[in-house]
Amino acid sequence: MIQELLDKVKNNKFTLGVLGLGRVGLPFAATFAHHGIKVLGADINKSHIEKILSGKAPFKDVHLEDFIKETVSNKNLIPTTDTSMVIKNSDIIVITVGTPINNSLQPDYSQLISVLDEIAKQDIKNKLVVMRSTSSPGTLEGLVRNTLEKKTGLVEGKDFLLAACPERIVEGKATIELYEVPEMIGGIQEGTNNIVEALFKKLDSKKEVIRVKPEEAELAKLFTNVYRYVNFALANEFAMIANEYGLDAHRVIDAANFKYKRGPIPKPGLVGGPCLTKDGYFMSHGMTHSDFILLAWKINEHLPYYIVNQMKKEMANLNLDINKSKIGILGLTFKSGSDNLIHSPSKKIVDIVGAFNDKIKVHDPYIPDTYALGETLDGSDVVILATNHPEFKDLEDKIEKSRCKLLVDCWGMLDPSKFEKVKYIGFGRVV
Amino acid sequence: MIQELLDKVKNNKFTLGVLGLGRVGLPFAATFAHHGIKVLGADINKSHIEKILSGKAPFKDVHLEDFIKETVSNKNLIPTTDTSMVIKNSDIIVITVGTPINNSLQPDYSQLISVLDEIAKQDIKNKLVVMRSTSSPGTLEGLVRNTLEKKTGLVEGKDFLLAACPERIVEGKATIELYEVPEMIGGIQEGTNNIVEALFKKLDSKKEVIRVKPEEAELAKLFTNVYRYVNFALANEFAMIANEYGLDAHRVIDAANFKYKRGPIPKPGLVGGPCLTKDGYFMSHGMTHSDFILLAWKINEHLPYYIVNQMKKEMANLNLDINKSKIGILGLTFKSGSDNLIHSPSKKIVDIVGAFNDKIKVHDPYIPDTYALGETLDGSDVVILATNHPEFKDLEDKIEKSRCKLLVDCWGMLDPSKFEKVKYIGFGRVV
Repeated sequence: MIQELLDKVKNNKFTLGVLGLGRVGLPFAATFAHHGIKVLGADINKSHIEKILSGKAPFKDVHLEDFIKETVSNKNLIPTTDTSMVIKNSDIIVITVGTPINNSLQPDYSQLISVLDEIAKQDIKNKLVVMRSTSSPGTLEGLVRNTLEKKTGLVEGKDFLLAACPERIVEGKATIELYEVPEMIGGIQEGTNNIVEALFKKLDSKKEVIRVKPEEAELAKLFTNVYRYVNFALANEFAMIANEYGLDAHRVIDAANFKYKRGPIPKPGLVGGPCLTKDGYFMSHGMTHSDFILLAWKINEHLPYYIVNQMKKEMANLNLDINKSKIGILGLTFKSGSDNLIHSPSKKIVDIVGAFNDKIKVHDPYIPDTYALGETLDGSDVVILATNHPEFKDLEDKIEKSRCKLLVDCWGMLDPSKFEKVKYIGFGRVV
Repeated sequence: MIQELLDKVKNNKFTLGVLGLGRVGLPFAATFAHHGIKVLGADINKSHIEKILSGKAPFKDVHLEDFIKETVSNKNLIPTTDTSMVIKNSDIIVITVGTPINNSLQPDYSQLISVLDEIAKQDIKNKLVVMRSTSSPGTLEGLVRNTLEKKTGLVEGKDFLLAACPERIVEGKATIELYEVPEMIGGIQEGTNNIVEALFKKLDSKKEVIRVKPEEAELAKLFTNVYRYVNFALANEFAMIANEYGLDAHRVIDAANFKYKRGPIPKPGLVGGPCLTKDGYFMSHGMTHSDFILLAWKINEHLPYYIVNQMKKEMANLNLDINKSKIGILGLTFKSGSDNLIHSPSKKIVDIVGAFNDKIKVHDPYIPDTYALGETLDGSDVVILATNHPEFKDLEDKIEKSRCKLLVDCWGMLDPSKFEKVKYIGFGRVV
C-alpha cells in the first residue's frame, strides 16, 4: 500500500483532498493545485465555496487570489461543499479544520470529530489521512486513529495510513511560506513519511523536511508557537517594567538589541490571533502546573485592559468624559496587514471601551464597511491606534491636524516628538 | 573638562583605573593594558593580587593569562591592594565590583558603597567614573552621583563626570567578547559619551557603541540577561511538559528548530551562575508584579530538586538505598567550561544529595583537588552528570564499563541508546 501510494505521488497520478478551506486549508489547496496537482477541496460554508468558484480569495494571502483564479479556471482545484465526494475521490486527505479552545480553555475537537465521522463513512482503504490542524500530543494516535479504526473496521498501517504534519506558516503569507517553512512529518508507519515528503517535494525539490514521531510533531508545533507567545508576553512585561521606571521600553529594547548577537528581544505590543492565543492550552490542558503558558496568556490577554486604563487616566487629566467623548479606533484585525478578526486584541479594545461608550468609530483598511480614516480622526476626541497596519505609519501629521485631542498608540509606532496639540501616550513609551 | 579628558584618551596620555579585579574587572584591565594603555587595578584580596603579580590568572578566560603575563611584566598593568593609589592616579576610574543580591532578593550594594567611599576620599576633580557593575535603573544618577557629590562637595558635570556602561560579556570569554560585544554608553553629560567611546575604540576602531541615557543602559543590561534567563526557564518547562507526555524534549525541540527561522528555542538544562540568577531582581525588586522573573527563577532554581526527585524514584526502582549508596557527581561549576562556582546549580545538587548522604565523590576537571574521573565512576553506585563540560562528551563507554548502576544526566548530553548495563535517566529525555 505504501509503495503504491508513493508511486502514485511520484508519477503525479494521485488526487489530493483538503477538508476545510480556511486560512490553513485554502492556501494549501491552491498552492498544490498551482503546481499541477489535482486538488479537491471541501468546506461546509456555501458562500465561501461560491466566492472561491468565482475566482475570489475570501481572505488575504500573498498569491492566493492569483492561484485561485488560475486553478479554479483550469480545474486543478475543485472547491465544493460535498465532503463525501472529496473523501471518496482522494488518495491523500489532508485535515485542515479549525481546532479552537472552549470557554474552559480545553481543546475543542468538534470540527475534527465531524470530519472524522465523514471520513469513516467512506471506504478509506489505501488512503493516507494527514492531520495538519493543531492538536495535543497523542491526538493522531488516539482520537484520530481510534475513531477511524472503530468506525470503519479497518486497521491503520494495514488498510489505511495516518500522519501528523502540523502547519507552522505565518498567516497571510501561506502561499510563500509553504515553500520555505520546513515540515515536521510524523507518520505512524515509517514508510508513510516517504509519501508525505514526496508530496511536499512537488512544491519545491529543496523543501526541507524532518521525520519525527507523530506525537513529537504535534508537540514541536506547540513549542514553536508557545515560544513566540511567551516572548511577546515577556516584551510586554518589559514594557510595563520600563514604564514604572519612567523609561521608554522601545528605546531600551533597541539599545539591548543593537548589534548584539544573543537576541533579539521582541518589541512590545498587542498579541492575539487564532493560533498563538490558544496553542499553549493544547499542551497544558492536562496539566496543573502550566506556569509560563498561563502567565503569558494573562499578560497578553489583559494588555488591552491595561492600555484602556492608561487611556482613562489620561482622559481624566484632560477633562474628557469617558462616557461622552467620541472615540475612534484605528485597526480592528488581530495583526498588521491581516484581515483576520479571530481573537483580535483590537476587537477586545473596542468591546472594553464600548461597554461604557457607544460613540465609537472604527477604521480598518482591511475590513470593508468601516469608517474612513479622515472621518475617524476628525470625528473623535480620543483616537486609539490598535492594530499596527503599515497604513498607519507616518500618520503623525494627519492626527496632529485633526480634531482629536488624545492619541493612544498601542504599538508605540508613531513618533511622540511630532505631537504638540495632540496629547500622545503609547504602550512601552514614556507615559 | 570633557574636551581635556577626551584629548588625553585620544593621545594615549591617560591612566585607566579599575576597581575590583574579579571576572569582570581583571579581563577588562588586562585587555586594555594589552593595547598599551596604562592600567592600575585594585582589589582588596591580597592573595589574588599576588597571584596576578606572579603572572597567573586566578580564573579561566581565553587570553587572560597571556595578557596578564605580558602586561604585568611590561608594567602596563599594575595590580595592587592600594585602592586609594589607583583612584588618585587614574583619569578614568571603572567600577567593576560585585553587586549580588541579599537573602531577601534585594540588590546588595555594600561593595559599591565601600568603593564610592574610597573614591570620595580622593580628589576626583576632572576624573571620569564609569559604572560597569550591574545596577538597577537610577543607581548611577541616584546612589552613585549623590554619594560622590555629598561626600566631595563637587558637582557632576562641572567637576567630575559619571557614566554607566554595563558589562554584557559571556564569562570565560571576556578577553574575546570585549572586542565583539557592543557597548551601551550612558554618560550623564552628553559629551561624556565621546570619552567612553574613544576609550573602547582603543581596543578596536570598529568596536560598536550605542549612546543612551544612564538609566536606559542600566535597564537594557538587565533586559539582555533576563531575556536569556526566562528563555532557559521556558526550555526547562518544555522539558517537564514533554516528560509528562513521555516524549524526549531534546528531540522535540530539535525538530521545532530544524531549519526554522523563527527561533531557536533553547535546550533544557541547569541554569545558574553569578549573573542570570540575580539580574532579574535588579529590575523587579521595587515591584510587586514581577511575574516572569519570579517564575523563571522558580523553575531554574528548583530544577536541581526536580532532578534529584527523579533520581530518588529511579533509585527506589533499582533497590538502591538513597542514604547508603555511593554517589558520584560530574561537574561542580555553574556552566560548561567554566571554573566559577557562584550560584552553581551543580553545587546545589551536591548540597541536596549531601543532606541525606555523606558518601559523595565529586569530579570536576576545572576544580583542583576534586576526585579523578575513574575513581568517581568506579567508586559510585549512582553518577550524576551535573555540569555539561566538554570533557564529559562521549563518556558513555567509560560509564557503561564502570561499576556505576544508575546515570542521571542533567543535560541529556549523553546518548541513552548506548547504555545497557547502566540505567540511564536524563532531564528532558524520556524517563
